[in-house]
Amino acid sequence: MQPSVNRQWILHRRPAGAIADGDLVLREAPIPRPGDAEVLMRTLYLSLDPTNRIWMSDREQYMEPVRLGNPMRGVALGAVVESRSAAFKAGDRVMTLGTWSDYSCASATTCLPVPQVPGLSAKDVFGIYFVVGPTAYFGLLDIGAPKKGETVVVSAAAGAVGSIAGQIARSLGCRVVGIAGGASKCRWLTEELGFDAAIDYKSDDVESALRAHCPMGIDVYFDNVGGEMLDTALGQMNRFGRIVQCGMISLYNVEGPWGGPRRYSNILMKRLKIQGFIVLDFLPRYAEAYAALTDLYTRGQLKWRFHEVERLEQADKAVRLLYDGGNTGKLLVKVA
Amino acid sequence: MQPSVNRQWILHRRPAGAIADGDLVLREAPIPRPGDAEVLMRTLYLSLDPTNRIWMSDREQYMEPVRLGNPMRGVALGAVVESRSAAFKAGDRVMTLGTWSDYSCASATTCLPVPQVPGLSAKDVFGIYFVVGPTAYFGLLDIGAPKKGETVVVSAAAGAVGSIAGQIARSLGCRVVGIAGGASKCRWLTEELGFDAAIDYKSDDVESALRAHCPMGIDVYFDNVGGEMLDTALGQMNRFGRIVQCGMISLYNVEGPWGGPRRYSNILMKRLKIQGFIVLDFLPRYAEAYAALTDLYTRGQLKWRFHEVERLEQADKAVRLLYDGGNTGKLLVKVA
Repeated sequence: MQPSVNRQWILHRRPAGAIADGDLVLREAPIPRPGDAEVLMRTLYLSLDPTNRIWMSDREQYMEPVRLGNPMRGVALGAVVESRSAAFKAGDRVMTLGTWSDYSCASATTCLPVPQVPGLSAKDVFGIYFVVGPTAYFGLLDIGAPKKGETVVVSAAAGAVGSIAGQIARSLGCRVVGIAGGASKCRWLTEELGFDAAIDYKSDDVESALRAHCPMGIDVYFDNVGGEMLDTALGQMNRFGRIVQCGMISLYNVEGPWGGPRRYSNILMKRLKIQGFIVLDFLPRYAEAYAALTDLYTRGQLKWRFHEVERLEQADKAVRLLYDGGNTGKLLVKVA
Repeated sequence: MQPSVNRQWILHRRPAGAIADGDLVLREAPIPRPGDAEVLMRTLYLSLDPTNRIWMSDREQYMEPVRLGNPMRGVALGAVVESRSAAFKAGDRVMTLGTWSDYSCASATTCLPVPQVPGLSAKDVFGIYFVVGPTAYFGLLDIGAPKKGETVVVSAAAGAVGSIAGQIARSLGCRVVGIAGGASKCRWLTEELGFDAAIDYKSDDVESALRAHCPMGIDVYFDNVGGEMLDTALGQMNRFGRIVQCGMISLYNVEGPWGGPRRYSNILMKRLKIQGFIVLDFLPRYAEAYAALTDLYTRGQLKWRFHEVERLEQADKAVRLLYDGGNTGKLLVKVA
């Protein structure tokens, strides 16, 4: 069913703490007309990601915050409706950094075609290859640089990025320990994804569980969470360990500065490296990540699941799942 | 005058906060006899370094803390008195990780000969090449990796390591800004060592002074200080900046955990790298640092000064100078 109007989620008010009703409002707007070298696309899927909450705030961040009154930003899979660029034609599928809208226009230079991967749908390629796979791949390999036999710990390990980071580490011959919330997520990690161990932070004492499951200490900590869990891991890092600061989701709803870990001195004492990164910095090298993901997938060493929410009007409720661990798998909104 | 007995500073009590009288006690002891493959050396110079305070504590650290009742550890230049190793003979000068003693024995494998550098004394080579030069060199180049035209900020810049790190950065064509305590130290940095600017943390507002002197932001922060100054620098780092965590001297007298900086989230938002290191990790590559230091020295681009204290019995007072900025130059005790 073709909507007769365009709907957009507008950032009406910056959340104070957790996202609340009314922070985002769904408004109707005209279907925009593409300018020169632009495409008009209809959104098929919207990717909801932890970083969305950062964009809603006005704290210092890695790109411009979303302005109040503007449509909320999101990574989107779209179908080209009208193209004013030679690069795309109507019907093409494109991946881009778009908005939470039924329809939007984008410069063709910011749109990527959806690569064909045998056996995978456009949704798979969009959700896994475009958004979270390269994050896991470049963070783990470029920053974490794990060696065979080393111990890799992943926080938010049942999350979209963490689950892939852990599987890549597993394929390299590392001992992989995941931290996730709930027995069901933990079982998925060990029984389906081949993690060596999983720690349920909701029921286990993470510090002693880490000691039990990482008897040789931690060489790489792939951190999506920050805060208290980072501190705990920092206490068990081996000399010359690497901390991949991929995210700090435990802090995104916290106002004010996110202070550093109490065990900060271990950076010096253990000669640790902590490095933050944003996957967009690696855009020129995405083909490398795609090839590696395909290789793993073909060998049966890469699995994922989606947590799919129907309808654009559910987006503002759906995104909140990320911050209390309510999603199981890569979170997408099916828009059309 | 050959002492008739051996004197040793013994770690009697771990300091609580600043080092106090009685934490270290000077005791007489027999002159030890070298075992197989050992040398007996008479200490000529003792290097006093910020890390000495770490070794006096029992906090988690990068090597064993000094045990209570044992001689205090220190980097030493010695003259071999008796050798039971083919590697050295009586009269040789050696550099080693020794103790605060008139005499001590060391395994010959842990002693390095003093390289000959035209125009430099054994004291120069010991104090600058062995102890602080490689720290500055490897920290700046391997971790900081500054490029020509980038802005490098050095804390404790008039200190032994900081002053050399700044001069190396200068030789690479970087803009170099030093932070030091007092007008005299700041003048030394700009007038003698060629720093582009110096900030007197005792009289300047460091945050606004950094903004003024680093109009293009900070690319590399070579940090010897930690604490509040690290936080201030963290607020002005450029994207993809590097923080060389060489030391945290502002915290060494602080009991309990040294919490991380309030602006920790910038690690993620600005894609920063923070890395700690200990120069001993680079021992196999010291020849590279020596060659680079000699090259700089020969071209007149490397200067230093010593703060020399006479007599072993002054060591426990002298080492305290480091923690309140009382020394001007590389701190040495002339023992014999």
